[in-house]
Amino acid sequence: MRILGVDPGTNITGYGVIEKERDRIAGVVYGEIKRVKGEILSKCLARIYDNLMEVVKSSTPDAIAMEDVFYGKNVKSLVKQAQVRGVVILASFHSSVPIYDYTPLEVKKAVVGYGRAEKRQVQQMVKAILNLSELPPVDASDALAIAICHSNFLKAVAT
Amino acid sequence: MRILGVDPGTNITGYGVIEKERDRIAGVVYGEIKRVKGEILSKCLARIYDNLMEVVKSSTPDAIAMEDVFYGKNVKSLVKQAQVRGVVILASFHSSVPIYDYTPLEVKKAVVGYGRAEKRQVQQMVKAILNLSELPPVDASDALAIAICHSNFLKAVAT
Repeated sequence: MRILGVDPGTNITGYGVIEKERDRIAGVVYGEIKRVKGEILSKCLARIYDNLMEVVKSSTPDAIAMEDVFYGKNVKSLVKQAQVRGVVILASFHSSVPIYDYTPLEVKKAVVGYGRAEKRQVQQMVKAILNLSELPPVDASDALAIAICHSNFLKAVAT
Repeated sequence: MRILGVDPGTNITGYGVIEKERDRIAGVVYGEIKRVKGEILSKCLARIYDNLMEVVKSSTPDAIAMEDVFYGKNVKSLVKQAQVRGVVILASFHSSVPIYDYTPLEVKKAVVGYGRAEKRQVQQMVKAILNLSELPPVDASDALAIAICHSNFLKAVAT
């Protein structure tokens, strides 16, 4: 099965698609959608929506996994991130792909085995797990980690 | 000019269109988009998006005015409300209508003249200002108040 992981953010939204078949897991595509300097919020949200619809169309995931907000954050940042989440949830509905939420703690535990792991550790583990030739950028790496987390969860449910 | 006011909420999103010509101001249409019991969030957000796109298409507003989050609220409620805001902002971009934000304080001041006004006072003032035959429901009333607030702001800018 294919899973699209999304790490929502106004400045950078990371995405990454993985494919899991039995015990084999691999990266399909990943990237980052960045806010252009001076771009109005509505245009930025529309680009995130369009990009994700395009990724879903081209990589046909069976599920979308998204990182839940981290409630320890500054409230204004939370609100900005949640606005992006709304757009991602809408894209999931418009593309008929179910969406699942994981907390940052669950994602780090799934990938590094430790909830307080640093971003660098997540990048390195994602590279190793997916056997990538290079370190993915930080937010794409988080998105791939979220997808891996969802694939682990499925395993737990299935056994 | 016509203004669509939106009061975003996961359980109820209020909307209301007003028309302002010189000193004449009137209500065009208003209503509430309610979450159906047991409805998944993605479907609810998609309905809010579809309904607003439909309202924009049928009532052709020149601007959308939306209520900003109230930061005194519970953080989880803020996140839910912000997800709806993301969808409303996307709808504004997809329908090519600019969107403006007003704080709850600005809206109440504009309509009742007092930032800590009760919901009932807002309803009654909206009914009086727009010369409506009945009290609009609470969230539609808030949406109309937001539209009135934007129309006042325009007046201030113009003079």
